[in-house]
This record gives sequence, structure tokens and C-alpha cells, in this order.
Amino acid sequence: MPAPSSSSRISLPEITARLRDEIPLTRAMGFSITGWDGRLVTLSAPLSVNQNHADTAFGGSISSMGILAGYSLLYILLQEREISTRILIQKSATDFLRPVDTDLTAIAALPMAEAIEEFVETLKRKRRSRMTLESQILSGRSLAATHSGLYVAMIY
Amino acid sequence: MPAPSSSSRISLPEITARLRDEIPLTRAMGFSITGWDGRLVTLSAPLSVNQNHADTAFGGSISSMGILAGYSLLYILLQEREISTRILIQKSATDFLRPVDTDLTAIAALPMAEAIEEFVETLKRKRRSRMTLESQILSGRSLAATHSGLYVAMIY
Repeated sequence: MPAPSSSSRISLPEITARLRDEIPLTRAMGFSITGWDGRLVTLSAPLSVNQNHADTAFGGSISSMGILAGYSLLYILLQEREISTRILIQKSATDFLRPVDTDLTAIAALPMAEAIEEFVETLKRKRRSRMTLESQILSGRSLAATHSGLYVAMIY
Repeated sequence: MPAPSSSSRISLPEITARLRDEIPLTRAMGFSITGWDGRLVTLSAPLSVNQNHADTAFGGSISSMGILAGYSLLYILLQEREISTRILIQKSATDFLRPVDTDLTAIAALPMAEAIEEFVETLKRKRRSRMTLESQILSGRSLAATHSGLYVAMIY
């Protein structure tokens, strides 16, 4: 299937490199953005550098992957619309459902088109807009944790 | 002021070294436990390795410091009582109130004595017990974020 035309400007290795450069801890986590299909963004990180005392993933790494999944989704969404913003997180909540004993995968999906348009509209009007983005962290193919993040984007 | 006798078995450098060894990301974060007065545990980490694209602390580092503050508190509490457990986090929630533009400090305080006794009692009876622990993350001396963590300890 050809990539959606809206995604043609997006280079995942380039965004990954920028985030790794700007946020050194993501480099230590071995984080990368591995997929974007125009709706779902997928992030990956190896278990080895993210493990805890129980040889499963450290809670802080799981929360960070959730935070980064929503952040990356919003980053791509705004880059596709060629809107330059600073994105910050205001609230982060993680429910740990089962241990992650494989490399980490985090997935975040775009919300409904209406919510996106409202977000972008507010951003253009007030130079600042907020959106809640949900993400899932997987162990293999099983759901291991859910993350909810409230993000604010600011045009500066 | 002399240390409370209950803390005399606790070596902060030893606990820090163990956590850094078991959770490699805490080493990358430059995390250490810098204070324990029998009621409050204090954690520190340098801003440099924990910064984001805005030169303030990365949200994932702030959440991780919150998670680690509660974890360290529970670890010390159980070590003082000579109870060997595995501690895991089940829920983590962070409210980011203002940017952290200094080295990171996280503080967690012991809950009321009654809550601790109930927690320990349940742990001994059911070999498993849960407790919510709140922590604060500071920027300089200002409150920058609050963290609430639900932890489970299991005797194995």
C-alpha cells in the first residue's frame, strides 16, 4: 500500500534522530520511531537498557515510552500541517497491567478528525492548544500498559 | 541531630548502587538517593542528562524520579523491617506544574503510622500488600510536579 500523501514529508529516522539529540535520555533508552501509517505511530526500545530488578521493563521506561508515543504523534501531526510549535506534557498517567518481558513497543493513534481539527483551530487562534492522547505499551503482542497524556502545543 | 535508630541499618550509597545496578536507566539518569531522615527520602539527578528540547527536564525523567522516590521509600521502609520483597508499580500519575530548569530533586514522605502498620500487617498475612505513595519533584526550591504511585510489595 502506498504511504498516504500527507505522510510524504515525514522521515521517521530524521524525527528519531532529532528527539534523541534533544532528549538525551531517549538515546539511553534506545528509543526509535519505527512506524507511521497516517493514523498510528509505533515506537520501539530494547528491553536490555530498560530493564528493572525483575528483568522486566522499568516502570519509568514504560511511562516514558507512553509519554513519547503521544509526543511523537503530536509532533508528526503538526509537522504534516507545517505548524512550528513547542510541545510540553501537562499530565501523564500510566496503568501497568502486566510486566513487559520483551523489547518495548508503544503505539498511539490519532483521535477523531473532529478533535484534531478543533485542536488545530484553537492552536491557530490562541497560539496554544491542548489535547489528550492515549497510548498502549505492548509486551510482545499483549497489552502491558496504557498511558494517557495531556499535551499542550504552543506557537512561539 | 543524630539519625533515628531505625535508620542505622540503611546505607544510601549502597541502596543507590543497587538500584543503579538493577535498573540501568537510573544510571543513565544519574540518579542517587541523597537523603533519608526516617520520614522523608530525597533523590537527586542532574538536569544535563535529563533535559528535553526546551532545556528543561524531560517529562519521562520527572515521572521516573516520582516513581523512584516512592519506590525508594518503600524499599527503605521494608529493609528497616528486614522484610524481603519484590516491589512493583501498578499505577503512576504525574502532574507537571512548571518546568524544571535546575537539577532534579524528588521527595517522598512516609504516610501515617497507621497506614504503614496496616500495609505491613497485610503483607505478612497475605504475602502481598499495596500502598499509594505521593512524591514531589522540585525545581530549585519550587514545587514543579507531583507524582502519585500505587506500589505492590510481594514476599517471594
